[in-house]
Amino acid sequence: MKGEGRGRRRPSSRLGRSTADQVFVRGHDLADLIGKVNLGDFAFFELLGRLPEPRESVMFNALAVTLVEHGLTPSTIAARLTYFGAPEALQAAVAAGVLGMGDRFGGSIEQAARILQEAPSDGDPRENAREIVQGFKARKETVPGLGHPVHRPADPRTTRLFALAAENKFAGRHVKLMELIADEAGRAYGRDLPVNATGAIAAIASEMGLPWRITRGLAVMARAIGLVAHLQEEMEDPMAAGIWSRAEAEGSSETASERD
Amino acid sequence: MKGEGRGRRRPSSRLGRSTADQVFVRGHDLADLIGKVNLGDFAFFELLGRLPEPRESVMFNALAVTLVEHGLTPSTIAARLTYFGAPEALQAAVAAGVLGMGDRFGGSIEQAARILQEAPSDGDPRENAREIVQGFKARKETVPGLGHPVHRPADPRTTRLFALAAENKFAGRHVKLMELIADEAGRAYGRDLPVNATGAIAAIASEMGLPWRITRGLAVMARAIGLVAHLQEEMEDPMAAGIWSRAEAEGSSETASERD
Amino acid sequence: MKGEGRGRRRPSSRLGRSTADQVFVRGHDLADLIGKVNLGDFAFFELLGRLPEPRESVMFNALAVTLVEHGLTPSTIAARLTYFGAPEALQAAVAAGVLGMGDRFGGSIEQAARILQEAPSDGDPRENAREIVQGFKARKETVPGLGHPVHRPADPRTTRLFALAAENKFAGRHVKLMELIADEAGRAYGRDLPVNATGAIAAIASEMGLPWRITRGLAVMARAIGLVAHLQEEMEDPMAAGIWSRAEAEGSSETASERD
Amino acid sequence: MKGEGRGRRRPSSRLGRSTADQVFVRGHDLADLIGKVNLGDFAFFELLGRLPEPRESVMFNALAVTLVEHGLTPSTIAARLTYFGAPEALQAAVAAGVLGMGDRFGGSIEQAARILQEAPSDGDPRENAREIVQGFKARKETVPGLGHPVHRPADPRTTRLFALAAENKFAGRHVKLMELIADEAGRAYGRDLPVNATGAIAAIASEMGLPWRITRGLAVMARAIGLVAHLQEEMEDPMAAGIWSRAEAEGSSETASERD
Repeated sequence: MKGEGRGRRRPSSRLGRSTADQVFVRGHDLADLIGKVNLGDFAFFELLGRLPEPRESVMFNALAVTLVEHGLTPSTIAARLTYFGAPEALQAAVAAGVLGMGDRFGGSIEQAARILQEAPSDGDPRENAREIVQGFKARKETVPGLGHPVHRPADPRTTRLFALAAENKFAGRHVKLMELIADEAGRAYGRDLPVNATGAIAAIASEMGLPWRITRGLAVMARAIGLVAHLQEEMEDPMAAGIWSRAEAEGSSETASERD
Repeated sequence: MKGEGRGRRRPSSRLGRSTADQVFVRGHDLADLIGKVNLGDFAFFELLGRLPEPRESVMFNALAVTLVEHGLTPSTIAARLTYFGAPEALQAAVAAGVLGMGDRFGGSIEQAARILQEAPSDGDPRENAREIVQGFKARKETVPGLGHPVHRPADPRTTRLFALAAENKFAGRHVKLMELIADEAGRAYGRDLPVNATGAIAAIASEMGLPWRITRGLAVMARAIGLVAHLQEEMEDPMAAGIWSRAEAEGSSETASERD
Repeated sequence: MKGEGRGRRRPSSRLGRSTADQVFVRGHDLADLIGKVNLGDFAFFELLGRLPEPRESVMFNALAVTLVEHGLTPSTIAARLTYFGAPEALQAAVAAGVLGMGDRFGGSIEQAARILQEAPSDGDPRENAREIVQGFKARKETVPGLGHPVHRPADPRTTRLFALAAENKFAGRHVKLMELIADEAGRAYGRDLPVNATGAIAAIASEMGLPWRITRGLAVMARAIGLVAHLQEEMEDPMAAGIWSRAEAEGSSETASERD
Repeated sequence: MKGEGRGRRRPSSRLGRSTADQVFVRGHDLADLIGKVNLGDFAFFELLGRLPEPRESVMFNALAVTLVEHGLTPSTIAARLTYFGAPEALQAAVAAGVLGMGDRFGGSIEQAARILQEAPSDGDPRENAREIVQGFKARKETVPGLGHPVHRPADPRTTRLFALAAENKFAGRHVKLMELIADEAGRAYGRDLPVNATGAIAAIASEMGLPWRITRGLAVMARAIGLVAHLQEEMEDPMAAGIWSRAEAEGSSETASERD
């Protein structure tokens, strides 16, 4: 058979398929889910292959909701500037915004989740936390998931998420370890380094069984919603041209124009 | 002041801002919403500036859920192929998939919603439907929101969404007009052209007060979730290399390789 | 055979293929071209299927060179902001910049080229120009390819490109029509509306036989080079954080942070 | 002044600016360059801040030309699939293709260039090569820039590029080290691992003074040209629907459709 020269087997997706009168998602009839399952629960279902229990529903939706909106960020500004140049393609402006959810932003969740998921599950948790912090300090790297330039002394989202995690029985060893890491980092660096929202999300996502490799995807899917809202605002009340003008006036001498 | 030469005022976003101990989204304290509002309701809140009533919550989540997953599509395949080449950047693979939600896919919701929202609100609805269909026929264009290559005689998602719309009091004039358009198109083209899922979503979104310009965004935000799920599957059970092999084996003679 | 259900034939690309000891591009042995053909000539070869004559080489390279660099534009700012968030993926930042080359920027070349290529090839050119301008005026649309907010009285790139076109025998009917359109638009709108760089490029590309549908691609390929240069500068001398700070300080109240 | 709260200075780009009658790129009047400088030389100028000498022009254009076209690859297939869904936005389809030029493809140039540029400039070159190879072997990683699934015994592009490098006096220590790495890798892994095209480009780019961080950008800018050509072919002779049909027929059971 052609195309099999590299010995690759036929691809197969478990996610979706359809027949003349039914659409299936992960084996469930979609018509049975529409109207019964909210968007966050459906995202959980897509990622974990089963519908969430009530406590999982509350927690997963809480994580996603926390990630939707952060105001004017590099990502939302990039989306607005792209829409300015390409108003024919809303999806391209959303994509431009999604592209900025990389190592610096969405990636900090992924890095924190990785640390937690790769930490030894035995041994003294405080000792594990201390070793993790020492490793970052020795490599002169920032510990992901800690500290915030604005929220002091605590990130209000962390406070809320950890309270919800406790109520819903997700305050397990990953959450505990994240808190110990913050504590040990505070000692090691000699300043307050509380768990920030990305650290809290990383810890709770780890409790919920999400593999660290996909946690960046949580930020991406949630932020896509926020980006659509920013573009709706941009349509009604544009700010891209103003951002451009200011950057250009300061960044180049005299004037310039892309128009032609 | 420099940069103001084009007379543009300072930009301002109503969506998000934060202080030392609070984060606000559209004027609400985010900590009050986390744990109480599901992701679909939060998306509604972002787009419409207020939390949904219960019937709005059911309906909006239903629209979004319908749009998340369509199996292997050009968009999900593009995302998988991009991840194959750039595994360091999950967000870039999601963005590649989002880029395909253009005129042909997400755009059909937008086009259908535009027709409904721009139709006269007075006059005989059947007469309006007939004129709309005749316009498309005269321009030799397809009427958006109708027909389906697989689902016959009816799209199961439309059946479900319209039933939910009736239950939740969203079966108003836009839904009625969409159904009349399908009926008139069936006559004009001499074959069954039932309302498909994009047509149903366009009609219900119009009932809910979403401007047609942003309806493509519904598809984009929902599909971002599906794309993350496809990439999770691709990580565990890759199919990109196989799709490439087959395309290459058939599309070029002999063999080729991008690797170098 | 599977997958052929929709009656689609097997795909086939004429562009590239390889064997154990040769790589072919459009039927030529790539090793024979490397070191002999410059990048602009190779782009011409890719698009038109043959190597350019000397006058074509000068002209095509001139068009492409004109499009590479426009300083700080929405597109280059979006690329810099994306790199700030995703430094692991230079290609994603270039892509974000490319996404802004839509209807407003790259699209103006496409629109101008379309007008020229769809204009009747017979009849009085001035009469054709007048009709084109009247059409835009009646629809209250801007005539693409004309006018400039900064360059007055003439766009220096147009002057140079049209001089080169004359020297190289590309000042044919499309260039003539573009100039007549500018002249008629000046009369109709009562102000000077000289051919700008996008108009000049559209006219000359039309003379060279490039279909209007691909002219936006000229801008995209050239700008990709400029975007890489902006990202190199951003690596050495970052400005993204400053652009973000200013937008945020003015666009939201108080402060905000995406970091977490 | 607002926005300066984080102590960031005003941004400034050296790349482009304009006045009423002139456009400057890196301090040169653009009108003086148009018609005299080919696209590859202009890219060199953008990246290195000066026009190339003749031997640099030949070599840089050769590197770029080598990277433009590789036939049907994951990147060009993703671009075609994106165009299928979003025909309104050619730039978005190019961007989707660019997004795939990540660690696996464009990244292999970057990795090879980094190895070469970070290798000690003193000491015995063969000894350095051996240590580099041993490092990769110990970490069970592939040595970047070596080997090819199709081209045997040698990559014809490498042969040509290294011959050009010798003619143009670019066969210096980086090229020498790359060849020694291939030789040592052949010994260490017990099979032929010749320098492939990405390895050759990495070595020569290093000779030309391009920092390794920007070498991935060479692939991105060159491939943008190839992507435009693939999309032109896709417009004339579409293959996206066929690729989708086949993937879907094999990857899902029965049928599915994104259309609605």
